Amino acid sequence: MDQTPAGTDFPHQSVTFPDGVALDCGRMLPRVTVAYRTYGTLNVDKTNAILVCHALTGDQYVAEQNPETGRPGWWQRVVGPGAPIDTDKYFVICANVLGGCMGSTGPRSPHGERPGALWGTEFPVVTIHDMVRVQKRLVEYLGIGRLFAVVGGSMGGMQVLSWAVQFPEMVFAAVPIAAAYYHSAQNIAFHEIGRQAIFADPCFRNGNYWAEGVRPERGLAVARMTAHITYVSEEALTRKFGRKLQNAEGLSALGEQFAVESYLQYQGSSFVQRFDANAYLTITRAMDLFDLAGEYGGALADAFRAVQSRFLLVSFSSDWLFPTAQSRTMARALNHAAVNVSFVEVQSDKGHDAFLLDEPDFHATLRGFLAGCAAHAGLT
Amino acid sequence: MDQTPAGTDFPHQSVTFPDGVALDCGRMLPRVTVAYRTYGTLNVDKTNAILVCHALTGDQYVAEQNPETGRPGWWQRVVGPGAPIDTDKYFVICANVLGGCMGSTGPRSPHGERPGALWGTEFPVVTIHDMVRVQKRLVEYLGIGRLFAVVGGSMGGMQVLSWAVQFPEMVFAAVPIAAAYYHSAQNIAFHEIGRQAIFADPCFRNGNYWAEGVRPERGLAVARMTAHITYVSEEALTRKFGRKLQNAEGLSALGEQFAVESYLQYQGSSFVQRFDANAYLTITRAMDLFDLAGEYGGALADAFRAVQSRFLLVSFSSDWLFPTAQSRTMARALNHAAVNVSFVEVQSDKGHDAFLLDEPDFHATLRGFLAGCAAHAGLT
Repeated sequence: MDQTPAGTDFPHQSVTFPDGVALDCGRMLPRVTVAYRTYGTLNVDKTNAILVCHALTGDQYVAEQNPETGRPGWWQRVVGPGAPIDTDKYFVICANVLGGCMGSTGPRSPHGERPGALWGTEFPVVTIHDMVRVQKRLVEYLGIGRLFAVVGGSMGGMQVLSWAVQFPEMVFAAVPIAAAYYHSAQNIAFHEIGRQAIFADPCFRNGNYWAEGVRPERGLAVARMTAHITYVSEEALTRKFGRKLQNAEGLSALGEQFAVESYLQYQGSSFVQRFDANAYLTITRAMDLFDLAGEYGGALADAFRAVQSRFLLVSFSSDWLFPTAQSRTMARALNHAAVNVSFVEVQSDKGHDAFLLDEPDFHATLRGFLAGCAAHAGLT
Repeated sequence: MDQTPAGTDFPHQSVTFPDGVALDCGRMLPRVTVAYRTYGTLNVDKTNAILVCHALTGDQYVAEQNPETGRPGWWQRVVGPGAPIDTDKYFVICANVLGGCMGSTGPRSPHGERPGALWGTEFPVVTIHDMVRVQKRLVEYLGIGRLFAVVGGSMGGMQVLSWAVQFPEMVFAAVPIAAAYYHSAQNIAFHEIGRQAIFADPCFRNGNYWAEGVRPERGLAVARMTAHITYVSEEALTRKFGRKLQNAEGLSALGEQFAVESYLQYQGSSFVQRFDANAYLTITRAMDLFDLAGEYGGALADAFRAVQSRFLLVSFSSDWLFPTAQSRTMARALNHAAVNVSFVEVQSDKGHDAFLLDEPDFHATLRGFLAGCAAHAGLT
């Protein structure tokens, strides 16, 4: 097995800000690199830019083959020529998040305070807001004063919310998909299982596994398996696997594996080839810390007071990780704050992951919303 | 930390059947020991016996302090003098399941085929039906030809179903609580997370950890934490913990633990003191293999054709592990098979674990059902 830490050597397209960024935790992160990709052409007025924000284990390769994994872009159904986010019309930007492992500054970047070392578990605690502040640096670097839209699913949707709240004048349209304005106790609990599984792996070595040429693969695989269950609905698991056995025909084969077990194991083992455990710890923590209402004393509408963006909220009926009720609460709070908001619950039995899958209703909704906003913005 | 494997040395009350039992997997288990407890007095006609079946991590100490852990009996709210299962009226039996670690034959019993060794992971695959067959031996040994009732929650409820189907003439009343007639793909997936966490622990040593004086405590703790999330409802987690931090007051403490994390860690670490990893593997597998409809070509009503018991089915509205819909399907199938069945969905926000907690509606329902059955059986 290749023991190269995921993402080490590949020359990802990136920009480095040597002056660093101030973080919510109070620390200064010196020298911040942002790895990113763009698609389509920025118009002369620089008014057609859409920032796509990725989820927990996503990356910047939204609409093209990932050069490290060889896999297709993670949202090629949604972003591309003629797609709902049409790269023939829009200039699309996607950046690896702060704390990630696909080229942006994260736990496996050079330690900011100890030359020669890597950050490892000493990488500072980062928040969704921190991620967004770094993205803002990139957007400014690209010469863009205002984004036509910010779009993202799951943790990407949290970033969309943070954008609209932190930088209201910079976001014309905001589309949080399968997202929430806080991470619930149950969500935190599932993340904690994953973290404990990583900590329990003897190859974790207090986060210094790179130096010792090992990786906490089994712990990270268990973390991924746990998370994966939360991404799919009970219906989808039943439809795909039910109680089917992996190899044998009869129920007499009591030692046999169920197909769903084999599937989960595959999800776990393929994940560890592309993702770094310390990045997983950092990013899950950022999600857990997200609580937009909490920052405003529990009054979500107050968080949205300064918002200038038009909103489209999308939820999926079988999503039990970020259930529809949370989007509905957001829609109400946005209404309360006199924000222009559409809210669509897409009927789907695919669970949270539906935002990544073939969901024609969702795609049509997104396409229509962007077209309407483009007309309003005088983009056509 | 005490390195004695849980359950090794304590002299649990038990009976041994030296002729063993034939298992569903086709193997013969030589010499089977059943650890059990009884409460109350068997009447002269031997018609007042109630068998209580325990869940995945339960034991025979249903209504008294567990001598190993020092904790109160796990169902003292339900079983005892004057309780819904009234030991002033009924003779209550509870046995540690086959495959368990509280005195009954299980993975840490002497290997049946290799003298001097323990079974470990070579312990045969057992099923819920096998557990029940062993319980039947105990009931016969106690001189009881017919049980007044068989009652159990969760995996205990699976055993109740197995009793009513395998030995219809021996069960006057059957009460499966928070139970299901099969383990779903999602349930199997959660169990598989736990198993993979145990396998990933370097102290697992292919299941021979006793010989090496270690225990896979971290893996087993992760397994328990994962299972525990499925035992509680999202509402209960939110009510008890929400996004509260463990120690600090302010959100500024970004390194701080959430209370729900600390709670889960406690659940994990206290569990490993009382439970054996190989037993956990064996019993979770038995649950996964349970599929009463599957055994009858998918026709659940056919499974119930020979049933003679009166049934009470109880589900809890916020139980997402064994949801109400599964009990409703069972009620329909029992009706279809012309079985006398009551079905009560108890409104509760406590999730699956509600059957162990203070739920007056559930307790009143159980008490009333048993009183009605006692009248029918001429027990009063």
